[in-house]
Amino acid sequence: MFESAELGHRVDKATYAQEVPALREALLNAQFDLETSGKFPVIILIAGLDGAGKSATTSTLNEWMDPRYIRTHGTSEPSDEELERPHMWRFWRQLPPKGRIAIFDGSWYHWPVFERAAGRISNPVFDQALEEVHRFEQMLIDEGALILKFWMHLSKQAQRKRLKKLEGDPLTRWRVTRRDWDHFKLYDTFQEISERALRRTSTAASPWIQVEATDPRYQKLTVGRILLEQLRRRLDAPAPQPPVIQAPPTRPSFDGLNILRSLDLAQKIDKATYDRDLEKYQGRLNLLTRHKAFGDHNVIVVFEGMDAAGKGGSIRRITQAIDARLCSITPIAAPSEEERAQPYLWRFWRVLPRKGRLAIFDRSWYGRVLVERVEGFCSEADWMRAYGEINDFEEQIVRSKGIILKFFVSISQEEQLRRFQERQESAFKRFKITDEDWRNREKWPQYETAVCDMLDRTSTEIAPWTLVESEDKNFGRIKILRTLCERIEERL
Amino acid sequence: MFESAELGHRVDKATYAQEVPALREALLNAQFDLETSGKFPVIILIAGLDGAGKSATTSTLNEWMDPRYIRTHGTSEPSDEELERPHMWRFWRQLPPKGRIAIFDGSWYHWPVFERAAGRISNPVFDQALEEVHRFEQMLIDEGALILKFWMHLSKQAQRKRLKKLEGDPLTRWRVTRRDWDHFKLYDTFQEISERALRRTSTAASPWIQVEATDPRYQKLTVGRILLEQLRRRLDAPAPQPPVIQAPPTRPSFDGLNILRSLDLAQKIDKATYDRDLEKYQGRLNLLTRHKAFGDHNVIVVFEGMDAAGKGGSIRRITQAIDARLCSITPIAAPSEEERAQPYLWRFWRVLPRKGRLAIFDRSWYGRVLVERVEGFCSEADWMRAYGEINDFEEQIVRSKGIILKFFVSISQEEQLRRFQERQESAFKRFKITDEDWRNREKWPQYETAVCDMLDRTSTEIAPWTLVESEDKNFGRIKILRTLCERIEERL
Repeated sequence: MFESAELGHRVDKATYAQEVPALREALLNAQFDLETSGKFPVIILIAGLDGAGKSATTSTLNEWMDPRYIRTHGTSEPSDEELERPHMWRFWRQLPPKGRIAIFDGSWYHWPVFERAAGRISNPVFDQALEEVHRFEQMLIDEGALILKFWMHLSKQAQRKRLKKLEGDPLTRWRVTRRDWDHFKLYDTFQEISERALRRTSTAASPWIQVEATDPRYQKLTVGRILLEQLRRRLDAPAPQPPVIQAPPTRPSFDGLNILRSLDLAQKIDKATYDRDLEKYQGRLNLLTRHKAFGDHNVIVVFEGMDAAGKGGSIRRITQAIDARLCSITPIAAPSEEERAQPYLWRFWRVLPRKGRLAIFDRSWYGRVLVERVEGFCSEADWMRAYGEINDFEEQIVRSKGIILKFFVSISQEEQLRRFQERQESAFKRFKITDEDWRNREKWPQYETAVCDMLDRTSTEIAPWTLVESEDKNFGRIKILRTLCERIEERL
Repeated sequence: MFESAELGHRVDKATYAQEVPALREALLNAQFDLETSGKFPVIILIAGLDGAGKSATTSTLNEWMDPRYIRTHGTSEPSDEELERPHMWRFWRQLPPKGRIAIFDGSWYHWPVFERAAGRISNPVFDQALEEVHRFEQMLIDEGALILKFWMHLSKQAQRKRLKKLEGDPLTRWRVTRRDWDHFKLYDTFQEISERALRRTSTAASPWIQVEATDPRYQKLTVGRILLEQLRRRLDAPAPQPPVIQAPPTRPSFDGLNILRSLDLAQKIDKATYDRDLEKYQGRLNLLTRHKAFGDHNVIVVFEGMDAAGKGGSIRRITQAIDARLCSITPIAAPSEEERAQPYLWRFWRVLPRKGRLAIFDRSWYGRVLVERVEGFCSEADWMRAYGEINDFEEQIVRSKGIILKFFVSISQEEQLRRFQERQESAFKRFKITDEDWRNREKWPQYETAVCDMLDRTSTEIAPWTLVESEDKNFGRIKILRTLCERIEERL
């Protein structure tokens, strides 16, 4: 696989000096067009063995282009902030917005390749990790990113020569560490593992590009030229059409039955029981947050539901019970400008809580398959792929010891009307009802279908949905608090 | 995930009787349009627990439509023919051509789900298998197939009731075996495993469709209606455009160096050495094919190369050495009508050799990334994804103990001209040279690029390419025979 990158490609000084000025100018122009059009984000991966000129190439790209619009990310040890979140959190933080370029030296390939090389993970687990990487990249591509993956290759012989030469010169000796020679001993292992990684993740939409690293001039010019070619091609192309996909199947309804309609909304509890249970569960919840093991978990609580179903009131019953420093509420409305320049999951990744914290989402990433679907804010292909992306997202949280609770708070259409009218008539509740609420109400059947599809596709063993009958608000609140206590207890 | 399929959906007799005639007519019409247009193949998976009405639904579909154009495949034990090939071979044999429908009861999900349920494979290996399934289905979709995946679901309670009822009736008692009750005991395990399988393989392009199996009328009508809806949607849609993909990067050439041009074509061997080596390696090869362990492997030898590079002569030097009953040669020209109605890899899967046999391909699946790319017979997106598909294909062969040898036979452009002229002048060689050969010759640079990309992306640890310097034919022939002997010896 690496044969083409062992041919001894070279560029002489004169050619280099002649090529660079025009290339720089063209790259700067492309970067300017990218920045001003804000069409797509550019993600450049610079991967390969140590000593294969990764950082030199990265520096050169920064030098040739306007470094204010480029962010470069190395593979430093994760910070404690990062260690308290899913592994991919750090990369989500580093994603460039539309119009910008990010260069990753190392990137999300670093961990699996090194763990496998050290023998700490087995081949199937390695494949799992690569598959996760593959799905992550596919998501970025579907969201519009241009991903360029450069693999810097040095033959074993060239690698040895390079290390020896650096070591021989007193001025560069410090650059060769014991770790470099240790890695060199693993050359063949690395080669085999890298090949597997490249094979598994080289796709039509983002193929790996191998670059011979023996001659720095050749290496830099090659990367620069390919970058320019790919930037121009995407910049000058018309906006891509959403792909044609197989239709989401409509479940025929012969009996009008669906999971929402089958809820028993008549369930009630009396005031005395409510008061007693509220105190009981709020107390239990408070104790749980002081439990020794609570600090090992990030708790994420998602609220979705029809308008006026009682999400806000339920959320307050939770926050009352918890030290405000441990708890955050994120209300989700239309995304900000900064958020629109990123993949739709980005705004949720950025506010994932640390361990020992509880984060409440008043509406959530499920907006993609609810409001965005019903209102046509994204294409069919976009929301159809979102189910899998969301399951991947939640799986990553659970794997890093997160606890996810998802509540769908449900009322009947009649009850909603009653509450809307009440809101409109009550002075201090009027701000809670807008024209949009009335418009959404007209789309009740479409929302119902979207909710049923969402429940079918995202209520998983690891992150199940809890349906909350909220026709009687107090009944719903207690069900939520009880479920919350029970799920946390299970995991502590 | 299965909540919606546990609601107790029912269709009464009268509704059923009223619905069926119109549905049948519409399905027959759609099937007729499918058959006459030959637009795409339809693959229907009927999966789920035993006793969930899979075979009854399958029979009904056959009854409602024209069964002459439907093939139904169960999950019988693999035949010895099938055991001697990669696991997926049986499914490739069963793929429907364009215009036809195939129903799979069980399908490629059967093996991973059952192995995992029995605890014979670990979770990461299970994920690997699902990932393979996912890539297989994605390839079918990219090749134009409509895949409908129905998951028949029975709640645990409904399952128990059904088995009890069948057992209680003397007329149906025979249908309940010990195996059914054994499976029932694993219900929760199956549920969990199935959920994982569904989650991993439910994509925008082919989502799983869950169908409640408690009431057969509901079940059949639901499947029928969804099938009709999806058939019509695809039949009535315009042909899909190839997806817009990131451009294949052009490797800039500053020095005119590439892997083909860097071959040392001046290598020669004298007549005496050739005669001696030919006898030596042919003898060794013959002995190898009689080796006890040879019967455990399928040997696949691929020849690619420029026109007149000497593929035919090299192939004859191999076949001379082997019992003709153990050896087959498949020359690859333009695909037949039957082959064009299938995914491009189908024609190669169908002729994979049994164990203990050697199959030679004179040109091969690499045509996809060579001639089809250069001549524009398929879209850029098609050949870009082919590298990964081909690597998957070869990986499956190697995993089932196959041995793959891939020879690229190379000559210079000048030598090709000499051989073309010689062929044209020699009466008994004139049939070997056509106008097409001259036309191909004009596209030498494009072929060269395509070959270099192919070598970079498909020369893998498990199935490496061997470049054969064939300017001196005898030198090339000996290199091929020697490599063949050595690679087989390594594996025996």
